[in-house]
Amino acid sequence: MTPKKVPTLLDQLAALKTGLYQKDFLLTWKQSDADLRAVLLIAETLEELWRANIDARAFRGGLAVSNFRDKSTRTRFSFASAASLLGLSLLDFDESKSQVAHGETVRETANMISFLTEVIGIRDDLFIHEGHEYMAATAEAVDTGFKEGVLPQRPAVINLQCDQDHPTQSLTDLLHLQKTFGSLDALRGKKIAMTWAYSPSYGKPLSVAQGIVNLMTRFGMHVVLAHPEGYDLIPELVQQPQRFAKESGGSFALVHSMEEAFKGADVVYPKSWAPYQIMERRTALLRAKEAKKLEELEKECLANNAKYKSWECTDQLMGLTKGGKALYMHPLPADITDVNCKAGEVAGNVFERYRVPTYHEAEHKLYVIAAMILLTRFEHPAKVLKQIVDRAEPRRGV
Amino acid sequence: MTPKKVPTLLDQLAALKTGLYQKDFLLTWKQSDADLRAVLLIAETLEELWRANIDARAFRGGLAVSNFRDKSTRTRFSFASAASLLGLSLLDFDESKSQVAHGETVRETANMISFLTEVIGIRDDLFIHEGHEYMAATAEAVDTGFKEGVLPQRPAVINLQCDQDHPTQSLTDLLHLQKTFGSLDALRGKKIAMTWAYSPSYGKPLSVAQGIVNLMTRFGMHVVLAHPEGYDLIPELVQQPQRFAKESGGSFALVHSMEEAFKGADVVYPKSWAPYQIMERRTALLRAKEAKKLEELEKECLANNAKYKSWECTDQLMGLTKGGKALYMHPLPADITDVNCKAGEVAGNVFERYRVPTYHEAEHKLYVIAAMILLTRFEHPAKVLKQIVDRAEPRRGV
Amino acid sequence: MTPKKVPTLLDQLAALKTGLYQKDFLLTWKQSDADLRAVLLIAETLEELWRANIDARAFRGGLAVSNFRDKSTRTRFSFASAASLLGLSLLDFDESKSQVAHGETVRETANMISFLTEVIGIRDDLFIHEGHEYMAATAEAVDTGFKEGVLPQRPAVINLQCDQDHPTQSLTDLLHLQKTFGSLDALRGKKIAMTWAYSPSYGKPLSVAQGIVNLMTRFGMHVVLAHPEGYDLIPELVQQPQRFAKESGGSFALVHSMEEAFKGADVVYPKSWAPYQIMERRTALLRAKEAKKLEELEKECLANNAKYKSWECTDQLMGLTKGGKALYMHPLPADITDVNCKAGEVAGNVFERYRVPTYHEAEHKLYVIAAMILLTRFEHPAKVLKQIVDRAEPRRGV
Repeated sequence: MTPKKVPTLLDQLAALKTGLYQKDFLLTWKQSDADLRAVLLIAETLEELWRANIDARAFRGGLAVSNFRDKSTRTRFSFASAASLLGLSLLDFDESKSQVAHGETVRETANMISFLTEVIGIRDDLFIHEGHEYMAATAEAVDTGFKEGVLPQRPAVINLQCDQDHPTQSLTDLLHLQKTFGSLDALRGKKIAMTWAYSPSYGKPLSVAQGIVNLMTRFGMHVVLAHPEGYDLIPELVQQPQRFAKESGGSFALVHSMEEAFKGADVVYPKSWAPYQIMERRTALLRAKEAKKLEELEKECLANNAKYKSWECTDQLMGLTKGGKALYMHPLPADITDVNCKAGEVAGNVFERYRVPTYHEAEHKLYVIAAMILLTRFEHPAKVLKQIVDRAEPRRGV
Repeated sequence: MTPKKVPTLLDQLAALKTGLYQKDFLLTWKQSDADLRAVLLIAETLEELWRANIDARAFRGGLAVSNFRDKSTRTRFSFASAASLLGLSLLDFDESKSQVAHGETVRETANMISFLTEVIGIRDDLFIHEGHEYMAATAEAVDTGFKEGVLPQRPAVINLQCDQDHPTQSLTDLLHLQKTFGSLDALRGKKIAMTWAYSPSYGKPLSVAQGIVNLMTRFGMHVVLAHPEGYDLIPELVQQPQRFAKESGGSFALVHSMEEAFKGADVVYPKSWAPYQIMERRTALLRAKEAKKLEELEKECLANNAKYKSWECTDQLMGLTKGGKALYMHPLPADITDVNCKAGEVAGNVFERYRVPTYHEAEHKLYVIAAMILLTRFEHPAKVLKQIVDRAEPRRGV
Repeated sequence: MTPKKVPTLLDQLAALKTGLYQKDFLLTWKQSDADLRAVLLIAETLEELWRANIDARAFRGGLAVSNFRDKSTRTRFSFASAASLLGLSLLDFDESKSQVAHGETVRETANMISFLTEVIGIRDDLFIHEGHEYMAATAEAVDTGFKEGVLPQRPAVINLQCDQDHPTQSLTDLLHLQKTFGSLDALRGKKIAMTWAYSPSYGKPLSVAQGIVNLMTRFGMHVVLAHPEGYDLIPELVQQPQRFAKESGGSFALVHSMEEAFKGADVVYPKSWAPYQIMERRTALLRAKEAKKLEELEKECLANNAKYKSWECTDQLMGLTKGGKALYMHPLPADITDVNCKAGEVAGNVFERYRVPTYHEAEHKLYVIAAMILLTRFEHPAKVLKQIVDRAEPRRGV
């Protein structure tokens, strides 16, 4: 009944000293290695339990609140799925229907939505320099609310994508790499190319690229970041990986050629983003509600993007990778040439070859989120999971 | 404690060979008689259990996803109710809030929303020739996803109304007929008039009428379809019932007079729809976003409708039916003369006489949907229901 | 394990003769003192159970339907939280997505959303003279539907704010007063100032003020209502409190000076509202969709409001209260000077001093709503709660 792997996973988990209890998960670089490993171990455990038809609910009621300030399919469903998996009731906080329009403060709103709340998942990636700030302010507000005795429990704030990081994505990706290469240790010395790619749209967030280079450098990988001149990420977030790489025995380099990045790579991650400087201008215009200037900015950017149509992940480029067989990764949806656009991030045949792996990659996200909830909300998640395994109630069937 | 009828219903169910496990429910005419009978038996069982205060939850978490591409009250609530009844978490897939806007493919979206999903309910009736196609594409995508190992389970796609059929409605209606006349066998030889009726609105889907004539002809009923010249249904869908009638010992006729249809009828089903040809023009204009031409088309249609104001279910017409006492049916909401419009499908006093029966008719839908979920998601639903009966947990109370 | 207070609370509850079973909760003045006391006792019990980590679910499935015809954060979350606490599935009835747009009657809609529904929570405060009417019509419809056998159970309608009353708020406030002063009896002879306050917005409902003066006069309090000339409440609703005060040994007075109201007060409740006559004009214009006249009305009102900027709850005014230490109350969000507006209902330093108490005040609402559900849906709620206590399942953890 119990999946074979699970006892080992739980033993490993019990051995880790994590610091997430009563905390938030906002940026991977603020978390210890033990925290990150614990997320992966619990995510894998929960995935095994689901596939073995074991009910993993650890709550009997209570809320999981989502606040999406930007569109989302997979993260929205991942968060809702994690809530259902753990027995929490989902409630989407739609600001347009709320008193936030009446000028409520972040602190007050955060408390008002949290009386029975175990977790608040936030996506806020439209405004550079603001998304993380908003999440941190929410986290501080519920932390204070809990300490003041206003909140009976301390909800965890989970970053579902901000201007800086996208930790549920990058840890999903790390789990995918671990499963593909066999272990975290097997990633040491592997080369991953995190590269910009051409897209016919603009304004895509920088957080995925930033998240990847700041996470994978911690696991001994050789991380190469590649983008055309001018498509910079947030400056601080390309400093930090240098240090991480040094500490982990990996390396970090920035190049301006997709070919160079792909050469000999074990893993490629071609994905579009908007230049950091453009995001700053865009944020200012969005704030000022300058519709016309936003249109002009979009035109300017699309024209600029068009100069880099050759930044497409084609068979030819894939041929430069290790044995021509690097693992292709993408958070989805990708801009696929001749599938959902005329020219995009990846050629149709390349994508099709890696379609099923990218779907598996995406699947992990809901378990990563559920893992973050268990780690932040239970002092001894390994014990809770052990009890779930011992209870062994079927998830479907009576 | 166990409702009297239930053991008999479950015995009958256990004796049926159904083919719905790991499949979808899209069109009644693709399903065997056994499948349809199984839906009715389970629906009745669940209704008995609910009224006897027995908890019928067969899932401990997992998602029921709804995707409404058109307005709905009762189907929306029926689907949500079925999910709650069975222990699934409801998640409404709102395309406007999703990455579908970013050009995601149907295949990808279908997989991305399904990692923990048991059922996807879709309403897509605005675009003729497209609604069913979309559902079939979604079904194929999740089927492939399951076979490829991407999805841990194979969600069933349930048609909550498409351009061709409205199976949750027509089976709801069949259950209503069965309850009213005592049994399915009692329907043999009964006359049902499925007739167009005047409405001050336009663009109503054809699927209810198409669903009724394609379902009731399979149960030995004399089905008369009536509409003004030019208010045609999809041509193939008025061919098929001829064959069904021949096989079942019933009959099928098309007339252009409400009087003729009502004469001697045991059951009347007067309901407006837009002519098939108009729906094709409308679909083209909607696709092309031709707002002005859509307005002109609406005007043209309303003017045409107005010629047939006499197609109203009045007391006088009801007098032509068997003993003046035919059963009046409607999926609701009806356009009721002097109640919610000046002139509509049915006279106020006729509707009021049948108001309570139409409400009962509507009630069945949630149990029909729940029955489809159990049949598609469990290999032995009779066993699951037996266990639910034996468990005998109160639905309300501790 | 069982919180100390709970047995006493349940004994008190068992001793009360309440009349809410199979009824609605629309207006406090239609309910007996026993009903109100029962709400407080159950709310307190549920709050104790939650904080003691005891699962309080009394339902295994079934729906809690919310219908918000106006914006809301805290009441929306309170209702959703109450549903989760008791084991009901939340379903938000969004009229824009429903057939209501197709001209469905209130009676029909009420039945169509209620086949598995235990409670319908409605907010309808935009249109004066209409909100309560709509709730009463819904209640009558489901009552008839239940008696006709259409509905298997009789959903309770709960007023989440109408044009007349805001009972979940006023009972929340009463619970807050009870907790602050030690008991309901301790409120006898205490002075509460329910006063208008300046706000830079307009069109705020009158129901909070009306609810407070009609509830607190029943508990022997000295209630002073204060507002500028012309800022009248609904006339009948300032007659009734006179009678309540006489019966309870309290008093009720209307003054036109904030200073006078605050003098020697034990409790102050400064909150803006729009004059009754303005709400009538506004309702007419909203109905007629007179956008331009609505703008003019808004301008006129804001200009009028501006004459009363001195109606702000400042430190100086607080100094007039009993020992300078009256309890400050507000349903939140408040218009706080220099926090979310330039000039508002309350000075920043006053609000900050009472911030935590107002958050506690807000917390009670979800338990008040849950209490109303248990009282309307169970004949013997004290027994149900006793069984929950005996079951003693942990809410979090396995």
